[in-house]
Amino acid sequence: MAVQSPAPGTTDPGPAPANPDAPSAFGPAVALSCRECGARVPLGPVFACEECFGPLEVAYDFGDEGPEALRARIEAGPQNIWRYAPLLPVPADVTDKPNLNPGFTKLVKADRLAAELGVTGGLYVKDDSGNPTHSFKDRVVAIAVEAARTFGLTTLSCSSTGNLAGAVGAAAVRAGFRSCVFIPADLEAGKVVMAAVYGGELVGIEGTYDDVNRFCSELIGDPIGENWGFTNVNLRPYYGEGSKTLAFEICEQLGWRLPDNIVIPIASGSQLTKIDKGLQELIRLGLVADKPYRIYGAQAEGCSPVSAAFKAGHDVVRPVRPDTIAKSLAIGNPADGPYVLDIARRTGGAVEDVDDEQIVAAIKQLARTEGIFTETAGGVTIGVLRKLIESGQLDPAAETVAINTGDGLKTLDAVAPSTGMTAVIRPTLDSFREAGLA
Amino acid sequence: MAVQSPAPGTTDPGPAPANPDAPSAFGPAVALSCRECGARVPLGPVFACEECFGPLEVAYDFGDEGPEALRARIEAGPQNIWRYAPLLPVPADVTDKPNLNPGFTKLVKADRLAAELGVTGGLYVKDDSGNPTHSFKDRVVAIAVEAARTFGLTTLSCSSTGNLAGAVGAAAVRAGFRSCVFIPADLEAGKVVMAAVYGGELVGIEGTYDDVNRFCSELIGDPIGENWGFTNVNLRPYYGEGSKTLAFEICEQLGWRLPDNIVIPIASGSQLTKIDKGLQELIRLGLVADKPYRIYGAQAEGCSPVSAAFKAGHDVVRPVRPDTIAKSLAIGNPADGPYVLDIARRTGGAVEDVDDEQIVAAIKQLARTEGIFTETAGGVTIGVLRKLIESGQLDPAAETVAINTGDGLKTLDAVAPSTGMTAVIRPTLDSFREAGLA
Ligand SMILES: [Zn+2]
Ligand SMILES: [Zn+2]
Repeated sequence: MAVQSPAPGTTDPGPAPANPDAPSAFGPAVALSCRECGARVPLGPVFACEECFGPLEVAYDFGDEGPEALRARIEAGPQNIWRYAPLLPVPADVTDKPNLNPGFTKLVKADRLAAELGVTGGLYVKDDSGNPTHSFKDRVVAIAVEAARTFGLTTLSCSSTGNLAGAVGAAAVRAGFRSCVFIPADLEAGKVVMAAVYGGELVGIEGTYDDVNRFCSELIGDPIGENWGFTNVNLRPYYGEGSKTLAFEICEQLGWRLPDNIVIPIASGSQLTKIDKGLQELIRLGLVADKPYRIYGAQAEGCSPVSAAFKAGHDVVRPVRPDTIAKSLAIGNPADGPYVLDIARRTGGAVEDVDDEQIVAAIKQLARTEGIFTETAGGVTIGVLRKLIESGQLDPAAETVAINTGDGLKTLDAVAPSTGMTAVIRPTLDSFREAGLA
Repeated sequence: MAVQSPAPGTTDPGPAPANPDAPSAFGPAVALSCRECGARVPLGPVFACEECFGPLEVAYDFGDEGPEALRARIEAGPQNIWRYAPLLPVPADVTDKPNLNPGFTKLVKADRLAAELGVTGGLYVKDDSGNPTHSFKDRVVAIAVEAARTFGLTTLSCSSTGNLAGAVGAAAVRAGFRSCVFIPADLEAGKVVMAAVYGGELVGIEGTYDDVNRFCSELIGDPIGENWGFTNVNLRPYYGEGSKTLAFEICEQLGWRLPDNIVIPIASGSQLTKIDKGLQELIRLGLVADKPYRIYGAQAEGCSPVSAAFKAGHDVVRPVRPDTIAKSLAIGNPADGPYVLDIARRTGGAVEDVDDEQIVAAIKQLARTEGIFTETAGGVTIGVLRKLIESGQLDPAAETVAINTGDGLKTLDAVAPSTGMTAVIRPTLDSFREAGLA
C-alpha cells in the first residue's frame, strides 16, 4: 500500500536507489517526494525540490501486510521508537546499531489538570521530557542519525538555540559520529554546558539565530561540509519523520485509536505537520479506525506568526522578530507555517497564542496538578489549551492530548523569579508554628 | 517462602495486622523485622526497633508460586516498578492508584566507556536519569507514598538537599497528598526552584542538613506531625524497598541473571544495602540462578567515611563533616554504613572514593563516550569504577553494572567551569577556517 502518491499530472521518476542495497537501508521508504508539486527524487541527503524549491518528504511503500500482522509486529518491538521501524525510513536491523533509543515516553492521564480546566472528555499529557536528553528532539535526531549512517556522512551538525544541540551532541557520541554544532555565541551559560558536555565541537556564532542558520547553509554548499549531516537542513526529510512517532505512540497507548484533539507547540511547524502525517498513515494502514480529529497549534504571543495568520484567515505566514521566554519556539519565519494552517483548518482545529505570563502560569499549573515540570514550550501548549477551552474553540467534552516537548530543568530561569520557599524558619517547632505552617 | 526469617533465639510476634485488610494492602509483606536483633513488629509507620533501636526492614511471605509463574506475571506487568508489585510492600491493585510510575529505566550497554576503561567482560550503565523527576529517588518515594496512603497519612514530607525534595513534591501532587518539605535555607537557587515548582510547602531551615534532620525528628514526635509521612524517617522501611527495584530491573534486563559486579554510590548506604537485599530475594525465589556477585560502593573523597572504614578494616563508620561537590552523597554519618561494609566484604567487593577533580572528569567521560549526562553522584560512581579497575580491585574481564542515580541538569555547576564552546567565530567560512575547525 503506497501511502503517499505523487500528485496527479506530475512526472514520477519512481524509486531510483543509487545501489541495490538502498531500499532496505531505508526500510519501507522508497523516495523523497515534494510536498508542493509531488515530484519524486531518490532518497538522498537533499531537502528541497529542484523543480519548485518545495520541501521534500519521505514517501513509502508499506506493502500489503495487513493491520493485524503489522500491529503484532509493532507490539513485539522494543520499548522505544524503533518499534515503529516498519513505518520509518530506517533499516529493519536499526536496533542493532548503537543509538540513544528514544521514545515510548509516558502518556499521562491528567485528571487533576482536566478538573481545573473543565475537561470532561479525558485529558492526557504526552510527556516527552522522558527522552534521553529530555526533549522530543531525541526522536527526530535519531532518524537523522540513521540516515547519516546510511549516506556515509561522518560529522553530525545543526544550528540550535538549545535542545537540539544537546540532542545532536549526545546522539553523535552514542552512534559514533564526530559532531560540530552551531549556536548563537550569546546563549545562556547553562544551555552551553548542556550542549558542550558531550565533547563534540560547539561553535558560537557572533550573531542571531538567523545568522547561524545562514552560515550553516553556506557551509553545506562548501567543500568543507561535504560529509556533514545537518539534522535540520540536508537531513531534514528524515529528521522530520521522527515526529510521526509521537502520533504512533499516542494512538497505540490509547489502545490503537485516535484521540479527538491534539494540542502541539509550533516552532518551525514541522512537529505538528508530521504528527498529522503519522495519523494519516495509521488510518490508511488500518492500524486505527478512521474518525475526525482536530489538530491545534500553540504559539507564544511574542512569536505568533502562524497564530496571527490563522486568526486573520490568511494562507501565508508573515515573518516576525521573536520576543518571548519560549526560546525553543522562537522561530520568526516558520518553514512549515502554511502547512500548519492547512492542517488546523482541514481538521477543524485552531492556532492560538499565550503571553509570557500565561506561559509561566501554565508551567506551574501542570507542575502542581500533575507533578510534571515542563519547559517553556510545554507552558505554551498548556496555556493555549486553557485559552482554547475558555474561548470555546476546543470542546472540553472531547478527548484531548497535549504534547509536553521537554523538561523544565532546561528553562529554570522562566519560573525562578516567581518560585521559591514558602518560609524560612529556625529549626524549632515554635518557629514552625510562628510561620503559620502547623 | 519466607525470604526473611527472624534471627535464631529472638521472639517472633509474627504478622499482627491492625485489621483483616492489612495483609493485602501490603501485598506479600507480612511484618517489619529488625535488621539487628530480628524482632518483628506489625507493618506500621515506624522505623526503629523498640528492643535495640536497630533499623526495621520489610519482611515478606512470597508464597510458593514458583519462579516460572512469577516471572511470567512480572513480564506481563507494566513498564515501571509496579511490574515487581509481587515483590514489594504494595497492594496488588497499586497500578490503579495515581502515582508517577517510575522505573524500568534503560540498562545501557556502554561499549565505548568499556573500551576506555579496559573492561572486556561487558559494561552497563543503569540510567536512572530516565525517571520522572530524573533521579532514582522517584523509586523509593513511590513505595513510601503507597505506604502513606495505606496508613491514612495526609502530608508527605522529607528532609532533603535536592533530589528528594523534588521527587516528594512531584509524587505528592500526582498521588493527591499535601506536601511539606524541609531544606537548608542556603540551598542553591536552581534546586529551590526544582523543589518548589510543584506547589507544595517548601520550608527553608536556618542551619545545616543535620539541623534539618533533627528538626524533622522533633516534628515527628509532636502532635503537629501526627498524620505526616516522612519518606526517609517514619516511612523509611517502605521507602528503602524501592531501591530493590534497581536490582530486579538489572537482572531482568540482563535476561534474568546476575551480573558479576555492581558499582553503587553511597549516601546513607540504603540504596546499596537494598540492592543486595533485592538480589538475595531473586536468588531465593529462583528468579535468577545463584552465583557469586560483588558489590562495590562509591564515595566522594570529601565525604568518605565508609570507604575509610573499609580500607582500615573497621566495622564501625566514623562520622565526617562533608566537603564535596557531590552534595547528594554528602551524608557524613551514613545510617547503613556498617551494612555496606558487611556486604562489600561478604561479596568480595570494595568501597572506594574519588576526589572532586576525578568526579568532574568522570562526568565528562561518561558524556563523551555514551552520551549520558550524569549528576555528580554518577561521576562518583564512574570515577570509582575507573579507580577500582586501575587498582586491580575490580576484574575488567567480569561483567559490570554501574548505577547512574540522576541527571547532570541538576548539577550543572559542577562541570560549568570546565565546559564551554570550542570557539566563537563570525558567521563566515573564512572565520570558520581561521579557527582551525575545517
Ligand atoms: Zn516541487
Ligand atoms: Zn532490634
